[in-house]
Amino acid sequence: MKTFLDKDFLLNTKTAERLYHEHASKMPIIDYHCHLDPKMVADDYRFKSITELWLGGDHYKWRALRSNGIDEHYITGNASDWEKFEKWAETMPYCMRNPLYHWTHLELRTAFGIDKILKPETARAIYDECNEKLQQPGFTARGFMRRYNVELVCTTDDPADTLEHHLHYASEAEGGAARMLPTWRPDKAMAIENPKAYADYLGRLSKAADTSISDYKGLVDALQKRHDYFATLGCRLSDHGLSEFYAEDYTDSEIERIFGTVLAAGARGETAMPVSLDDMKKFKTAILLDLARMDARDGWTQQFHYGVIRNSNTRMMQSIGPDTGFDSIGEWNCAEAMARFFDRLEMEDMLPRTILYPINPNAFYMIGTMIGNFQKGPVKGKIQFGSGWWFNDQKYGIEEQLNALSMLGLLSRFVGMLTDSRSFLSYPRHEYFRRLLCDMLGKDIERGELPESELPFIGQMVEDICYNNAKNYFQF
Amino acid sequence: MKTFLDKDFLLNTKTAERLYHEHASKMPIIDYHCHLDPKMVADDYRFKSITELWLGGDHYKWRALRSNGIDEHYITGNASDWEKFEKWAETMPYCMRNPLYHWTHLELRTAFGIDKILKPETARAIYDECNEKLQQPGFTARGFMRRYNVELVCTTDDPADTLEHHLHYASEAEGGAARMLPTWRPDKAMAIENPKAYADYLGRLSKAADTSISDYKGLVDALQKRHDYFATLGCRLSDHGLSEFYAEDYTDSEIERIFGTVLAAGARGETAMPVSLDDMKKFKTAILLDLARMDARDGWTQQFHYGVIRNSNTRMMQSIGPDTGFDSIGEWNCAEAMARFFDRLEMEDMLPRTILYPINPNAFYMIGTMIGNFQKGPVKGKIQFGSGWWFNDQKYGIEEQLNALSMLGLLSRFVGMLTDSRSFLSYPRHEYFRRLLCDMLGKDIERGELPESELPFIGQMVEDICYNNAKNYFQF
Amino acid sequence: MKTFLDKDFLLNTKTAERLYHEHASKMPIIDYHCHLDPKMVADDYRFKSITELWLGGDHYKWRALRSNGIDEHYITGNASDWEKFEKWAETMPYCMRNPLYHWTHLELRTAFGIDKILKPETARAIYDECNEKLQQPGFTARGFMRRYNVELVCTTDDPADTLEHHLHYASEAEGGAARMLPTWRPDKAMAIENPKAYADYLGRLSKAADTSISDYKGLVDALQKRHDYFATLGCRLSDHGLSEFYAEDYTDSEIERIFGTVLAAGARGETAMPVSLDDMKKFKTAILLDLARMDARDGWTQQFHYGVIRNSNTRMMQSIGPDTGFDSIGEWNCAEAMARFFDRLEMEDMLPRTILYPINPNAFYMIGTMIGNFQKGPVKGKIQFGSGWWFNDQKYGIEEQLNALSMLGLLSRFVGMLTDSRSFLSYPRHEYFRRLLCDMLGKDIERGELPESELPFIGQMVEDICYNNAKNYFQF
Repeated sequence: MKTFLDKDFLLNTKTAERLYHEHASKMPIIDYHCHLDPKMVADDYRFKSITELWLGGDHYKWRALRSNGIDEHYITGNASDWEKFEKWAETMPYCMRNPLYHWTHLELRTAFGIDKILKPETARAIYDECNEKLQQPGFTARGFMRRYNVELVCTTDDPADTLEHHLHYASEAEGGAARMLPTWRPDKAMAIENPKAYADYLGRLSKAADTSISDYKGLVDALQKRHDYFATLGCRLSDHGLSEFYAEDYTDSEIERIFGTVLAAGARGETAMPVSLDDMKKFKTAILLDLARMDARDGWTQQFHYGVIRNSNTRMMQSIGPDTGFDSIGEWNCAEAMARFFDRLEMEDMLPRTILYPINPNAFYMIGTMIGNFQKGPVKGKIQFGSGWWFNDQKYGIEEQLNALSMLGLLSRFVGMLTDSRSFLSYPRHEYFRRLLCDMLGKDIERGELPESELPFIGQMVEDICYNNAKNYFQF
Repeated sequence: MKTFLDKDFLLNTKTAERLYHEHASKMPIIDYHCHLDPKMVADDYRFKSITELWLGGDHYKWRALRSNGIDEHYITGNASDWEKFEKWAETMPYCMRNPLYHWTHLELRTAFGIDKILKPETARAIYDECNEKLQQPGFTARGFMRRYNVELVCTTDDPADTLEHHLHYASEAEGGAARMLPTWRPDKAMAIENPKAYADYLGRLSKAADTSISDYKGLVDALQKRHDYFATLGCRLSDHGLSEFYAEDYTDSEIERIFGTVLAAGARGETAMPVSLDDMKKFKTAILLDLARMDARDGWTQQFHYGVIRNSNTRMMQSIGPDTGFDSIGEWNCAEAMARFFDRLEMEDMLPRTILYPINPNAFYMIGTMIGNFQKGPVKGKIQFGSGWWFNDQKYGIEEQLNALSMLGLLSRFVGMLTDSRSFLSYPRHEYFRRLLCDMLGKDIERGELPESELPFIGQMVEDICYNNAKNYFQF
Repeated sequence: MKTFLDKDFLLNTKTAERLYHEHASKMPIIDYHCHLDPKMVADDYRFKSITELWLGGDHYKWRALRSNGIDEHYITGNASDWEKFEKWAETMPYCMRNPLYHWTHLELRTAFGIDKILKPETARAIYDECNEKLQQPGFTARGFMRRYNVELVCTTDDPADTLEHHLHYASEAEGGAARMLPTWRPDKAMAIENPKAYADYLGRLSKAADTSISDYKGLVDALQKRHDYFATLGCRLSDHGLSEFYAEDYTDSEIERIFGTVLAAGARGETAMPVSLDDMKKFKTAILLDLARMDARDGWTQQFHYGVIRNSNTRMMQSIGPDTGFDSIGEWNCAEAMARFFDRLEMEDMLPRTILYPINPNAFYMIGTMIGNFQKGPVKGKIQFGSGWWFNDQKYGIEEQLNALSMLGLLSRFVGMLTDSRSFLSYPRHEYFRRLLCDMLGKDIERGELPESELPFIGQMVEDICYNNAKNYFQF
């Protein structure tokens, strides 16, 4: 009987323990994809309470609360901090087997040194202790990053963003502090479905780029200017959130026509999709290719997070807005379009380093083989199958991604884990991933499926996946 | 080396043994979805032989027999009871690793007290002993229900059914006997693909509801009358068998037009699909929404069993009819339509409690996240991911469903197992499920992935999933 | 701690060891689907070096090398044999957890008696030892087949092939040598997408069949003549490589029209798809049905390998041609068409024995149930779910296929493993499969999920799956 969450948590063999404690645990964290608020880092934000820190914006927890029958008043409503925390504590035992149960207790331990089980009986004591600590030095945004040995974070930023907080932080962060780099996420530059919102966005982009956007070529020029600017701040990654992949044939004049139609609809204040589905796909093909070319020229890595059905609960969308816990896994078949999209870039030798994150684990094997079609030296693992994303960021999802990658590609060249999180307490997800990785390798060795004689190499491989591969791959 | 099927069958840790023997095994059975014949319950049917009981209608076994190369004569043909049993006994060893191997031997043990392995050498002795027992008191339909501690069963019934056997049974069942409630399954009310058969059905429905059905509004009125009648008999669940989900836009007049076209084709005796595919989808959207509203108003739970390709062997369909073992898993992508369908109901606050049963395990993760989009208090686990259905009702399918639900939602709020069976011997499937559930939790605890200190809570959670959750959720 | 790759490799219980050593390991190999070059067998080819043998045509290894960042010069380019081997040795440690790591070391041990770990430090010694042995007696094409106890191989051959090497080998192979039979693979007879290439092919087919092909009927006649010829050489299997399944309605005159259009386009030297997508599907439906009828009449087994996206990297396709490691798993939904296709054959009682090999493991459960729709005695396991194919031919893929088949059908009637390989060193994949099979059964027995008392039956079942089932099923 192992003790819950002890130092050998998730490590089921002696070899796994060795790999974790001698190799994985000592590596710093490169969190190359997250959604931290750059302002909070720049300001070294201090949280008012554990409720703000844990429940202020975490839609994973909100979903669990709703599943447990808790009224929205205690979730995103006006209940007090204590009331919301109490409901969370009441829900916690019902989260057993959900990753929230592990994450919550890992966070309590590693951030606050609390090893109590969260439940109604312990709620008040934990609430008070956390809140007390949150007033102490070291329990701020940057304090947490130091505590978890974070070397570098990549936030997620819009091309129209000023990046002022990145600039400010870069200029004044103490020596040895984590670097914070922006990531180029131009989703809004493709969102022609709502022409009015799109026109508004183009206004902001135009201002940020200090150039007018009257045609598609102008859009690309504006984006290129911002891309250049992001590069000056050390940006090395782009990111795209897509439903599907697109690989339509098109001509430049078609794209200009489509863009013109969208602009005109936007000028008239229309909010409904102004072009046909085919035209929408042509447009997205064109702009994604142009954006990929920018990344290729700068040696950036492009990321694709695809396949999510977003904001599917209209009532709640209208009441509390997007990204509040009403998203789910889609079932789009993307393999053919994806292959053609990358092929087109590869034909013109403009395929950047690429990371693919499917949301539906059904696509794990497809992705594990798709990346093999476009690998090319001298980059090691040029096309990557990204770590278990969102709903897959849990014990079985992580293991399945690692197994699919292992069986179909080279695990050894994997750039590893990231938090994808808005929270300064999510770094234990790296620990969680590392433990699972070491457990998997330890089991293989003890079962004679990997040679014990190669343990030094395997230890190095663990360190690579935890840290070195990302460092070398992204060339920060 | 564990003994086959002993008291700790499927329980691989001491903790699992404790959870099963101290918590799971003592809970009564609420079988909230089955296909028992209400008449057999009302009549307390006595089976003529183990062949009738086992092989009379079980298409799982028929498929296995065909896979083993047995001639149809011994399956659904005119062979004698003994001959058919003999072929089944001959096939049994070849079913090793198939769930039939476990179910068969569990049924022999728990229903008949026989712990022999079924094979040609034991066939005659087992056949004789079972048949002898089937003549004894307690080996009848109701006797089996008592033996397995069944507290309540929900049969599957058509809106046009008289429910006479439910009435009869309710009026005369002995004290302490299992309750038998109807389930509302209006598949035929949507089956416009064959207008002649549909017209016949409307005739029956019209008669049952004592109202004429000359337009779509009349259909809904007739259904509502029957829905009300089902409610008076304690019905708490509806059920739909669908290929796909539907969420088309439509107007009332479109639906009336489509319905009129179907009626006219039916009056002419036509048997081919009388409307376009688009119109069929509009019609199904409309009626499913109307049926959901009925359920919402009455506080019922709607169930969706979706994704099966049915009766795919035309030769056998023509020779021995539907539901004879020629169905398989489909590959429809339903996520988007499903999200829109539920969203539409949620927008008008008419989304009932809902249970989703995908047939393709590829959809497990999609479903595990889809339910999270529409959870709403005060119901705990309002939208449910149903237990491994049909081809998934076996060791790996059950485990995968439990894991997907655990990782993506709240296992603790799960309403648990059901038999979905036509047989009075299928109750050991509850035992099977409970053992797997306890094994999973026991393993987690012994590996330190759940805290041993919370064992009392976990024991309660086991009891809840086995019994209390269903009881509270359906509000029988 | 088990030793890497020792005699009990992959066998995790005593019972598994017994099943493997007493039953599985002694069975000969029937490799009923491979891509060996018949000429190499007929000539008893001697390899110039381990580089030629291992890296000459193995696109699995090429993909791994590319993933490891190795330049194409060392993969398919002009680097020397030693340089290529050195890059492979350098890449090998980075293949840990990939099946190549196991296969490579199994091949070194079983073919060359080398139990070193391949890595840069051992590269030269292994290279020299292998090359030395390759000059010795017994290290030729046929020598390897003897060493691995191969009783029969089925190559993959085009209807227009002369089969001269099969004839030659059959006439002169030593007593006790493996039989080599052709397999009928008429992919090119359906490849109307490129009419020019198709016309060229028809020319060759016409010549081989000694008949002119001026209409679709003529095509079928020519194919039937060649089918008859293949039968005289002992052919018992056909094989089809498809993206999707097709089950369109069509008339004979439609097919003649489509065929005429293709012929005319071919005569004009056109290379673009000459007919609509619908017409293409009608044509493929028609010819696949006609080919199935030929197989049915001769008692052959038809195989379907489906779902691959092939040659997706145009740059590499143009530079080094097809089948060079740029293929991946597709996401076509085929279930409905597949069901209709087999149903049509079954209705006319012309459905041959059939083996289905999906490339996407998402289809494993669908296939596991699809086969059940068309089982028919007296053949045992008439419709088969083929062994984990290509990207699924690895530890988890093999286990998942075995589990899906077990849960949904009859594992005991499975015709088992094949290499699907171009290499004379791939026979250890049979050993790999057999170990996994025995491990699975051993675990079940020791956990009490199968009865220990039935060990003799289970031992027989292992022998059947390894050898007897294939022998009986194909009726060579």
